[in-house]
Amino acid sequence: MVSSEILDRLSATLASRRDADPTTSYVAKLFHKGQEAILKKVGEESFEVVMAAKDGDKRHLVGEIADLWFHTLVLLAHEGLSHEDVLAELARREGISGIDEKASRTAG
Amino acid sequence: MVSSEILDRLSATLASRRDADPTTSYVAKLFHKGQEAILKKVGEESFEVVMAAKDGDKRHLVGEIADLWFHTLVLLAHEGLSHEDVLAELARREGISGIDEKASRTAG
Amino acid sequence: MVSSEILDRLSATLASRRDADPTTSYVAKLFHKGQEAILKKVGEESFEVVMAAKDGDKRHLVGEIADLWFHTLVLLAHEGLSHEDVLAELARREGISGIDEKASRTAG
Amino acid sequence: MVSSEILDRLSATLASRRDADPTTSYVAKLFHKGQEAILKKVGEESFEVVMAAKDGDKRHLVGEIADLWFHTLVLLAHEGLSHEDVLAELARREGISGIDEKASRTAG
Repeated sequence: MVSSEILDRLSATLASRRDADPTTSYVAKLFHKGQEAILKKVGEESFEVVMAAKDGDKRHLVGEIADLWFHTLVLLAHEGLSHEDVLAELARREGISGIDEKASRTAG
Repeated sequence: MVSSEILDRLSATLASRRDADPTTSYVAKLFHKGQEAILKKVGEESFEVVMAAKDGDKRHLVGEIADLWFHTLVLLAHEGLSHEDVLAELARREGISGIDEKASRTAG
Repeated sequence: MVSSEILDRLSATLASRRDADPTTSYVAKLFHKGQEAILKKVGEESFEVVMAAKDGDKRHLVGEIADLWFHTLVLLAHEGLSHEDVLAELARREGISGIDEKASRTAG
Repeated sequence: MVSSEILDRLSATLASRRDADPTTSYVAKLFHKGQEAILKKVGEESFEVVMAAKDGDKRHLVGEIADLWFHTLVLLAHEGLSHEDVLAELARREGISGIDEKASRTAG
């Protein structure tokens, strides 16, 4: 099983580059350009996910979803947020969904 | 720190619902509708992420990114893939990026 | 040749429904919901255009581009603008592009 | 009133550049790259429309909708279609919608 610590490491790296010299890396440049440029990348990558899925190329699809997640991590870091906020939200919903499921099973 | 085991649990749940009765849950219904319906949701959520970011509402933004990640997990499950494939790809790139960084530092 | 007066008629109809009772038509309801709802439709339709193109179904593609144009006309009307503003902008660029083309031919 | 003949002229120009030397113009290059590249542009422009609308900058919004329409015209030309197919579809629906409207007025 792949350790999901990669998200922790990536988020830490992204947070550390928010104010870095824009000439030092792709991400530092993107942070420097600002929210508008980051949102454009999120938009582009979402279309590339859909196109890769349509093409039926699973390897390509994984790469495009990685791109999309990566740019949402950049967006989170730009807003002073991180993957932990998203994972906490998913966990919170899981709890609610669990209750719904149980209720629906009981009702059934 | 939020445990990222939530992704493992979500992926396991999604995989288990791929062939479930479509009337039992939102996700079972979405799987039943098929790839086209899942891709439309990925598309919708990506626009909602961008709009929430533009609105400057961070709580809403976290919710929309959670929606977007969730629907990419549904897409992965539909294609017989999972978050582990995406995390492995991100980890692979981290390695490459680390080497690039080091090379650029040495060159500098 | 199809008359493009359809754009004039559509824009006039849309403008007339901006403040109509939301229960009277799809468009009146969409105007009532406001900009956010209209933008979501523009987003959805853009993904549907891309998916229809990928499917290679030309009839479906025409329908989806019609949906996309239609919802951009709704957006324009919502903002107090119309297709004429867009056509004027396209005409303005055509002029510039013509000059560029000529300059590049002369330079060549 | 702006003449919508601009759509006729643009479509004619686009059709003439489908097989042009890719080094001669932006559009010839885009046709040469193919459907995937054209769809990416349609996707990008749709996000830019939404972002411009959110910014409340009407002049910018008109420019972005012009970009979006332009790239859908490129897509249509690439597929051997044109704006006339889209306008005919919009006119066809107007007829249907007109009948619906009348029916609903009579019913009311």
